[in-house]
Amino acid sequence: MTSAIIVAAGKGTRMGTNAEKLFVEIAGRPIIAHTWEQFDRAACVDEIILVVRNGMEQTFARLAGQFGFQKPHRLVAGGPQRQDSVWNGLQALSPSTDIVAIQDAARPCTTVALITATVEAAREIGAAVAAQPVTDTIKESPDGKMVRRTLDRSQLWSVQTPQAFRVSVIRRAISEARRQGLVFTDDTAACELIHQPVQLVVSEAPNPKLTRPEDLPYIEMLLSKSRTV
Amino acid sequence: MTSAIIVAAGKGTRMGTNAEKLFVEIAGRPIIAHTWEQFDRAACVDEIILVVRNGMEQTFARLAGQFGFQKPHRLVAGGPQRQDSVWNGLQALSPSTDIVAIQDAARPCTTVALITATVEAAREIGAAVAAQPVTDTIKESPDGKMVRRTLDRSQLWSVQTPQAFRVSVIRRAISEARRQGLVFTDDTAACELIHQPVQLVVSEAPNPKLTRPEDLPYIEMLLSKSRTV
Repeated sequence: MTSAIIVAAGKGTRMGTNAEKLFVEIAGRPIIAHTWEQFDRAACVDEIILVVRNGMEQTFARLAGQFGFQKPHRLVAGGPQRQDSVWNGLQALSPSTDIVAIQDAARPCTTVALITATVEAAREIGAAVAAQPVTDTIKESPDGKMVRRTLDRSQLWSVQTPQAFRVSVIRRAISEARRQGLVFTDDTAACELIHQPVQLVVSEAPNPKLTRPEDLPYIEMLLSKSRTV
Repeated sequence: MTSAIIVAAGKGTRMGTNAEKLFVEIAGRPIIAHTWEQFDRAACVDEIILVVRNGMEQTFARLAGQFGFQKPHRLVAGGPQRQDSVWNGLQALSPSTDIVAIQDAARPCTTVALITATVEAAREIGAAVAAQPVTDTIKESPDGKMVRRTLDRSQLWSVQTPQAFRVSVIRRAISEARRQGLVFTDDTAACELIHQPVQLVVSEAPNPKLTRPEDLPYIEMLLSKSRTV
């Protein structure tokens, strides 16, 4: 059984509150409903856990009826850090879940194909992450003032969500992070702690995260386009 | 004396021809006219060299009259690679130019403040580049399949243009690259060949490059906003 955890509990300080950000309406529905819909449509996903801020349960719960989502879903309260929210989501999985896909609520353009490919890679390898090749020239600078060197861009990947895992793997990875007092904003980084290999899954379509108000027009264009095909 | 080289000779294959891309109209004028205008307005810039594709000279020349640009400008033919185009631009500088700022024509949101700061840093250090902190999580993967490690994002900078140099520095750097048969798409990378220190100049405002059609809505929003202030 495969579950999805959609992390919607962030503070979202770069763009008003996170709730405000996730409930911005684009192409006829809030951002979060676009994200949720993709996981609802993905045949490989059996249940959906939404991790939300305290007090927001009702607002999220209404969406399922409003947009006719079919999959079983549960709402779980988030923690102070993203890693705590993911941890809370993991506690809420069905006992028979063996694969879990973790998704940023603020990435509404994630495709069903990408979800499927990431889940399949996690089943095979244990951990997988959606990623795109870096297109900018990247410089390393320890002091933020002088360039130390130009990195070899051909070896660099920018990672996104979904990130998918065997449940036993991500539980062990985050337990180890918590034991060491480390906090990761990227779930696959915790896998490096326990030497779990992580596979890159190439994200063919644009899969941006809504972070700043400037991100909206591009996301609006992508979602409007996908609604007309 | 400070000169600017605006490189407008690329093939631009990711978005039709480069000419098509640079002549997309946003906020009442083509992309290239926005870029040109910022250098025309920057008090620290004394002359502007536009490097254009063969046969495009007339099209570019008309813009100066149409938009009332004031600074002396010259048109120069581009070469097969960006580095060749920059080289051709360097040959066309006034003999009294000691500082040169090199700009992607397809970055129309570059501010006068950023041009000024980059030119000042180049005067002091010899080479400087506009840059922004990397916001995505970046993984290193030699084979593009498995993650080797997560890089320390706090040390990573994504570089843009303008890139500015003492003329003697950039001539020496590109000569050395040509001598070794190396081709750089980033002018400051050639500086590393001759061990010339390069300073990062933080780009406070968004400074995106128009590469794909999807980039247009965001750039349109930025340019429309800047037109109304």
